[in-house]
Amino acid sequence: MKIVRFLTSDGQPNYGRIDGENIYLIDTPFSDTIKMGDKPIAIDSVRIVAPSAPSKIILVGLNYKEHARELGMELPTEPIIFMKPPSAVIGHLADIIYPSNVAQLDYEAELACVIKKRAHRINAKEAGDYILGYTCLNDVTARDLQKKDGQWTRAKSFDTFCPVGPHIETEIDPRGLKVELVLNGNTRQRCETSDMIFSPEDLVAFISRVMTLFPGDIISTGTPKGVGPMVPGDEVEVQIEGIGVLRNKVMPSPK
Amino acid sequence: MKIVRFLTSDGQPNYGRIDGENIYLIDTPFSDTIKMGDKPIAIDSVRIVAPSAPSKIILVGLNYKEHARELGMELPTEPIIFMKPPSAVIGHLADIIYPSNVAQLDYEAELACVIKKRAHRINAKEAGDYILGYTCLNDVTARDLQKKDGQWTRAKSFDTFCPVGPHIETEIDPRGLKVELVLNGNTRQRCETSDMIFSPEDLVAFISRVMTLFPGDIISTGTPKGVGPMVPGDEVEVQIEGIGVLRNKVMPSPK
Repeated sequence: MKIVRFLTSDGQPNYGRIDGENIYLIDTPFSDTIKMGDKPIAIDSVRIVAPSAPSKIILVGLNYKEHARELGMELPTEPIIFMKPPSAVIGHLADIIYPSNVAQLDYEAELACVIKKRAHRINAKEAGDYILGYTCLNDVTARDLQKKDGQWTRAKSFDTFCPVGPHIETEIDPRGLKVELVLNGNTRQRCETSDMIFSPEDLVAFISRVMTLFPGDIISTGTPKGVGPMVPGDEVEVQIEGIGVLRNKVMPSPK
Repeated sequence: MKIVRFLTSDGQPNYGRIDGENIYLIDTPFSDTIKMGDKPIAIDSVRIVAPSAPSKIILVGLNYKEHARELGMELPTEPIIFMKPPSAVIGHLADIIYPSNVAQLDYEAELACVIKKRAHRINAKEAGDYILGYTCLNDVTARDLQKKDGQWTRAKSFDTFCPVGPHIETEIDPRGLKVELVLNGNTRQRCETSDMIFSPEDLVAFISRVMTLFPGDIISTGTPKGVGPMVPGDEVEVQIEGIGVLRNKVMPSPK
């Protein structure tokens, strides 16, 4: 099932299920029994927003073996986690705003998972039951501020620095998916999720032993090699096989 | 005005104003005009929870000059920010849970401010208008994991690692307040907020130029020298002059 979140004509966010060119309203995606409306809504007639409204977004550093080799680093024995604030989240086709005090703004294509139900100290074997599905995420990063600060929070947390979407795919195996970053039509990152050091289930279990996860929370699984800069005017896409394409444009900050 | 958040008999959180030994219900603290109920509720009859439900909690590294000297570090020219997730927040008298995989759990007494209204790219001169008031915060930290990870997120983000409260004081000048950490009756940290490198207004302005702040969001202003460890059974208090006492007990993690 493909789940989207979109604004209805009154500006309220709603969840829906995509079927072909139409969306059907659903009451909630965070349940084993979903009530679905029977009135088709044309996808083109609504504004798609980020596919969940997370209480927190947790990401991980280095999680691809080839990326580790590229950087000449040893494979980590535990994930290094960091967060973006909910205020950074934008959806498919929304603009990434390039802050005026940032010297280098990088893309990072990532496979992200969305939490289905409260997860507290679970193990990796049962983690699949707690994952609603998978989506695309661009871990937009002010590389200069990341290096300057040492801590990554500021560099990763500007408004619009967390594009997510376009929808959640609930029926997909996260192993062996091709993840690509396409900048202005040119492929810049390309990898398979089978190269991950920690699987999505490993990450959800690990993080749930630190902090309780809630429905809609987003766990992103790290970026492969090939990260690089964007400038205002660029069109950036995260493409994940079997999920879809998350497309955003980079715009300059208003004065 | 002293603003508390508490659970009514139906388990719902409500805001109230403290007057002596009583609380009076208020509709919202995030408005210039507050509607107040006229029925007194005895403070002792309700359960006090954290004084706001933040969408994000932003904290800063090194922000006291004497602490910087103690560590032999130069004064920072910009704040280093990091975050705790909302799932880490607990209120006055709730227990801090000592995770079984943590070797050293430290207290850090801090003055925190609560955001009153949406703040986006504001300057320090106007920041006071965006601050509802001040409260006490204990930046509980797994010191061993902080050193191991390099990034501070995991070390600072376990459930219960963000005690806040007991209430928000709206009529107080944050300059020249005495901040103390008292462990089992013994003072471990003691400083004056006049020793801060960046004032609360500086911090709110700086952070608002990274991420949009919303009502209830919490900005904590860093800890002075003297941080140290706690063990299960300890009673830890953050005491701030003119605000109050935030008291929590450290309990072992259940198996």
